[in-house]
Amino acid sequence: MPFALFIGRFQPYHLGHLAATKWILEREERLIVGIGSAQYSHTFENPFTAGERVEMILATLEEEGLTNRCLIIPIPDIGQHALWVQVVKQYCPSFSRVYTNSPLTRRLFIESGIEVREIPLFMRDKYDATYIRKLMIEGDSWESYVPRPVAEVIKRVKGVERLREIVTRCDKYQ
Amino acid sequence: MPFALFIGRFQPYHLGHLAATKWILEREERLIVGIGSAQYSHTFENPFTAGERVEMILATLEEEGLTNRCLIIPIPDIGQHALWVQVVKQYCPSFSRVYTNSPLTRRLFIESGIEVREIPLFMRDKYDATYIRKLMIEGDSWESYVPRPVAEVIKRVKGVERLREIVTRCDKYQ
Amino acid sequence: MPFALFIGRFQPYHLGHLAATKWILEREERLIVGIGSAQYSHTFENPFTAGERVEMILATLEEEGLTNRCLIIPIPDIGQHALWVQVVKQYCPSFSRVYTNSPLTRRLFIESGIEVREIPLFMRDKYDATYIRKLMIEGDSWESYVPRPVAEVIKRVKGVERLREIVTRCDKYQ
Amino acid sequence: MPFALFIGRFQPYHLGHLAATKWILEREERLIVGIGSAQYSHTFENPFTAGERVEMILATLEEEGLTNRCLIIPIPDIGQHALWVQVVKQYCPSFSRVYTNSPLTRRLFIESGIEVREIPLFMRDKYDATYIRKLMIEGDSWESYVPRPVAEVIKRVKGVERLREIVTRCDKYQ
Amino acid sequence: MPFALFIGRFQPYHLGHLAATKWILEREERLIVGIGSAQYSHTFENPFTAGERVEMILATLEEEGLTNRCLIIPIPDIGQHALWVQVVKQYCPSFSRVYTNSPLTRRLFIESGIEVREIPLFMRDKYDATYIRKLMIEGDSWESYVPRPVAEVIKRVKGVERLREIVTRCDKYQ
Amino acid sequence: MPFALFIGRFQPYHLGHLAATKWILEREERLIVGIGSAQYSHTFENPFTAGERVEMILATLEEEGLTNRCLIIPIPDIGQHALWVQVVKQYCPSFSRVYTNSPLTRRLFIESGIEVREIPLFMRDKYDATYIRKLMIEGDSWESYVPRPVAEVIKRVKGVERLREIVTRCDKYQ
Repeated sequence: MPFALFIGRFQPYHLGHLAATKWILEREERLIVGIGSAQYSHTFENPFTAGERVEMILATLEEEGLTNRCLIIPIPDIGQHALWVQVVKQYCPSFSRVYTNSPLTRRLFIESGIEVREIPLFMRDKYDATYIRKLMIEGDSWESYVPRPVAEVIKRVKGVERLREIVTRCDKYQ
Repeated sequence: MPFALFIGRFQPYHLGHLAATKWILEREERLIVGIGSAQYSHTFENPFTAGERVEMILATLEEEGLTNRCLIIPIPDIGQHALWVQVVKQYCPSFSRVYTNSPLTRRLFIESGIEVREIPLFMRDKYDATYIRKLMIEGDSWESYVPRPVAEVIKRVKGVERLREIVTRCDKYQ
Repeated sequence: MPFALFIGRFQPYHLGHLAATKWILEREERLIVGIGSAQYSHTFENPFTAGERVEMILATLEEEGLTNRCLIIPIPDIGQHALWVQVVKQYCPSFSRVYTNSPLTRRLFIESGIEVREIPLFMRDKYDATYIRKLMIEGDSWESYVPRPVAEVIKRVKGVERLREIVTRCDKYQ
Repeated sequence: MPFALFIGRFQPYHLGHLAATKWILEREERLIVGIGSAQYSHTFENPFTAGERVEMILATLEEEGLTNRCLIIPIPDIGQHALWVQVVKQYCPSFSRVYTNSPLTRRLFIESGIEVREIPLFMRDKYDATYIRKLMIEGDSWESYVPRPVAEVIKRVKGVERLREIVTRCDKYQ
Repeated sequence: MPFALFIGRFQPYHLGHLAATKWILEREERLIVGIGSAQYSHTFENPFTAGERVEMILATLEEEGLTNRCLIIPIPDIGQHALWVQVVKQYCPSFSRVYTNSPLTRRLFIESGIEVREIPLFMRDKYDATYIRKLMIEGDSWESYVPRPVAEVIKRVKGVERLREIVTRCDKYQ
Repeated sequence: MPFALFIGRFQPYHLGHLAATKWILEREERLIVGIGSAQYSHTFENPFTAGERVEMILATLEEEGLTNRCLIIPIPDIGQHALWVQVVKQYCPSFSRVYTNSPLTRRLFIESGIEVREIPLFMRDKYDATYIRKLMIEGDSWESYVPRPVAEVIKRVKGVERLREIVTRCDKYQ
């Protein structure tokens, strides 16, 4: 039974991602959750390592009872958009179609002849990874935007402190 | 509950690997099956892509009813041994110890301060990935050395033809 | 008979580039048109692949009857300015001098002991690749800024749609 | 009018390569001569730089009056076979089919859904790049195996001396 | 006797860096001066090559009579923060602790279990590498902010001209 | 006062290397000891990290009282011979000439227009890094072939055990 692919960076995996995962699983038997930009971490765009993101997603899928239909695969970014779809195919079992709302991702898969479907946006004002990272940096409450197991992983790896230090510049002796 | 790590290239995942997986799962609650040299394929040493290897291992673990305790993670090789353990830590959830019989792998993890345990060799004369690849190339019977779902994946991707063509040299117009 | 080198990214190759090519060919017997940043595509700075840019330039030079004096060479960017001149020398037949108006390119070649000449700016208000890409994104008319064969390639590969999707952000489920 | 693709490393471009080029041009209107492993040089397998190989092929095609139907494109090797076809597509104008006798090249293009055709072997005992390089190293006569303009390039860049020094080991103080 | 590590990019090495070096040498017997982002040059952030930076620091330490207690090591940047500490350990003799004021550097070393100490900021309004580079670009006097031997190296390699050309954009024919 | 360059991999730095260093210092005021293939370690060809090799050389030069005239610089290998000389120039202060007995190194520097001088071979039967590594693996006495401080570093990092494990293959579960 082939897989569908849901691809994102999941920095972090939030409640919108979880709603999208469930919505896709109503339409597909099996799903690869592909973690893009896997080799990056400790930046504002990509604060968490691939391993930490695997842990966040796995813990959430276990709590939701979805692990037996999902496969989590970290996918490194090769830095050349024209090769990226091929890298995804290299790291993943064969998949039938891709779910994404990113215009660039859609274009790259379409140019490769792979079917792309959109995901409805669940509560789009709230569930946005960039917004959640900004809440963390500014000391606002962010826990309600992510699944409970994700919040636990973030706290265990001191993710909020890490994010704040990443964005603090001190060039004096650098 | 932390993971243990079983790391290999799994070119292909054979019955010795499966016996080792089960043996470790008698001692550990949860296991990461780390697929090394993930970016390589279509060579004699690494004929199968990471995605194909994920598929082989997943299909086998599903047949054995082991998926809920295992996590399959492809790990690219960065080409510098001194960085490799750190790459493994980057791609995997945190793990408590490593199971391997490779002297180099053991040395690299020990130099990083991570506990390493040996795996008993199950039927070592038979279950050796290099030997199985040679059987494929020479047209001998190889199916009995791998789990049934692995043989199905290899046949579906025309793995035997691929291996034979990889090792055929024709430099005339190359 | 040695070549001169005209180097650019040609995103896209526009009428200013063509005027420069002709102007150089009045002074030099033979010209290498070196396509920089060859491995990049699908970004605002570099929307077109090297292959697409080769096709644009080749079709234009054919229409102008200039192919027998020009050689088109894609040159990947190695990401380290101190090595870039050496990369250019590695990919190109030996050349006597470089034509460029880029201050950084000029400096790098001069530091390597290679002669650099400036190109007069032909209609500089109009013929600017960044400006042409912005016209494409904003839905304005851009065809009159590029040679006719370039416009045909851009339309065939759906370059305008690609550019618009590249610059549209949708981080909701990315 | 689309191109066909003839791909090789051309270390060096010999009379068998030239016969193959002509044979393909009896069947195809236009031909891309793709130079693989473009970034490598100064090794036994790849003694000449991409620029030197471009020069060899261009000088030969000019002497044969074939430049107006051929396009020479250096293509770097990304070190991952599963991505290689995509790299070729990235650097070349779109092409309809591939001519090659290399089993690995054939398999990679076929797995990507691209048509592959074989080339008859012209005087296979003589025209073999590895054999020609060995002649150079051993001080035997090699000039009759390559087109005259190729021999001139090799002499100008002191290619024979380079090859001999490459294969001489002196580890004493290395 | 183990080393301590003082790590920076030193673009350029200024009087604040020198004051920090001396302050650390009051507390440590021996010091590695690690030059980060060693492969970069000819950009606004990193105008000087690793070799030029080695020369600046060495000339200064010689004038100060500090060479016998210091070791200068260029360290390339691998582009993945999670691996960076391991790269530093790979290139340097073993060290006991790290002196830095960069929050990101501090976090990365702390996550690797290595002790980090802060450096007092000496005349922080004046001694800032970014500020000094801006002075150079704007034609203001900058020599008093760096040790005399550093100014000599910058003048010899025409560093001010280089910086100005780096930041001048001319996209017309690029 | 400009530097000369003595370049090698120094796996390990042995008494022949030391004799060569002293011989060069009779002819040159100042010497860069460039450590090539700096990013590699834990292989038979390159068992020791750059940091370990820096430590070996530094400890030896200190014992010999030569540190004030020598500069030790690790230089990563970029994997493309045509760029290697440029990488050396990027990492080192400017140097006037190169001392080497490697034919490939000599050719690469000569093709870049840099003067190369040979080093007399001191006791060539004994002082050969490959031979010394084989002695280590086979359990023979090797200490008398290297300076005393080098032997101490090798013992401290358990270099002999490392070398033996590197060359032991165990593919059973790899």
